[in-house]
Amino acid sequence: RRGEMAKATQLIDNEVFRAYATYTAIVLLKMMLMSLITAYFRITRKAFVNPEDTASFGKGESAKKFLRTDPDVERVRRGHLNDLENIVPFVGIGLLYALSGPELSTALLHFRIFVGARIFHTFAYLIPLPQPGRGLSWAVGYSVTFSMAYRVLKTAWLL
Amino acid sequence: RRGEMAKATQLIDNEVFRAYATYTAIVLLKMMLMSLITAYFRITRKAFVNPEDTASFGKGESAKKFLRTDPDVERVRRGHLNDLENIVPFVGIGLLYALSGPELSTALLHFRIFVGARIFHTFAYLIPLPQPGRGLSWAVGYSVTFSMAYRVLKTAWLL
Amino acid sequence: RRGEMAKATQLIDNEVFRAYATYTAIVLLKMMLMSLITAYFRITRKAFVNPEDTASFGKGESAKKFLRTDPDVERVRRGHLNDLENIVPFVGIGLLYALSGPELSTALLHFRIFVGARIFHTFAYLIPLPQPGRGLSWAVGYSVTFSMAYRVLKTAWLL
Repeated sequence: RRGEMAKATQLIDNEVFRAYATYTAIVLLKMMLMSLITAYFRITRKAFVNPEDTASFGKGESAKKFLRTDPDVERVRRGHLNDLENIVPFVGIGLLYALSGPELSTALLHFRIFVGARIFHTFAYLIPLPQPGRGLSWAVGYSVTFSMAYRVLKTAWLL
Repeated sequence: RRGEMAKATQLIDNEVFRAYATYTAIVLLKMMLMSLITAYFRITRKAFVNPEDTASFGKGESAKKFLRTDPDVERVRRGHLNDLENIVPFVGIGLLYALSGPELSTALLHFRIFVGARIFHTFAYLIPLPQPGRGLSWAVGYSVTFSMAYRVLKTAWLL
Repeated sequence: RRGEMAKATQLIDNEVFRAYATYTAIVLLKMMLMSLITAYFRITRKAFVNPEDTASFGKGESAKKFLRTDPDVERVRRGHLNDLENIVPFVGIGLLYALSGPELSTALLHFRIFVGARIFHTFAYLIPLPQPGRGLSWAVGYSVTFSMAYRVLKTAWLL
């Protein structure tokens, strides 16, 4: 049984899985960064949503005026939600893809393009860059996930 | 070490894991489809949220009128968020469930009912069907995930 | 091939992986609970968003007045979204962390603190507790995920 236990940690010896782990950790950390950016804009723009978050500004009407939406805060939040919508499929399908035995070079190509596209997408959303910059970076990441899903379904298909 | 590397890709040889991979890829692709449907309604209803997305409609007031919410767009977005809320637990708990050694037939039953329920849920949301169609399909998917979580906790419990 | 099939289910024999499975199932079930709490407040506050959900209250104007936002419903929904933003990175990075071969005691420390912090965060959001209770519990969970990501990147790094 001790031998079996050891095996469980050996996924991490597989190079494709190591690449998956590296890029997944990076892109999830990038997504987590959106929370910090939202907090930064909420504090600097003084735009909060929960009454208890404005208590330090005093009571009553003086604090109530900070319960408002701010365009910069909303922009970061949209970027964050778009990350969730796109990075969740990447993490799930990417794991299955990494376990489907692709060539390391092909896998690296998928992971690098996806993570690069999502980092570009964040800059395009926050600066903001004129379209179709953001739209294209979204489509590139989407296509990479689609390509990985195709290989997963081709390799694993059992309905 | 090469032997260990090979092992890492052999999860995909396990039939329950193959079934998990198949249904997870399908349901994540279905979730990704919501992005395309949102884009379709944003473009056909001319209802955008980012000023830079309306730049092609001209400048100033003529473009500003397309910065608005549309009931059809909002409906798809609610369906998309509901997917995130329900498919994320399925993907996470389903992976642990697939590794907990269930019977293939039991696992297939869980995966098929969940994915069927979520596809029905999307149609129920977008058409929309009268209640309780959408509510029931949500509850069916929820119950499947709960059932898998029960087995995971029974098998793996180490607090 | 039967030998390989058996191996696939042996991840669950690894104690760190069992701990990961236990805490991930618990925290995902906690996240799923937010859906039930939202439904509870929607029904008790009579605050719905889809016209078809108010059909049982009659037709026309009498039902339309239940298509409204309610502060309690919105509060639960914000808690749910915050869960998605924070629990998704935990589940993804935690899996890679569990496969990176950490000490069981260190891994348990990470998982326990994260799940405890997220349960506290939910109470802090829903009661609500005065700040910085909610903010601190958010930061604790965030830091745990960051710490696991650091180990994943140190162990698996392949860019």
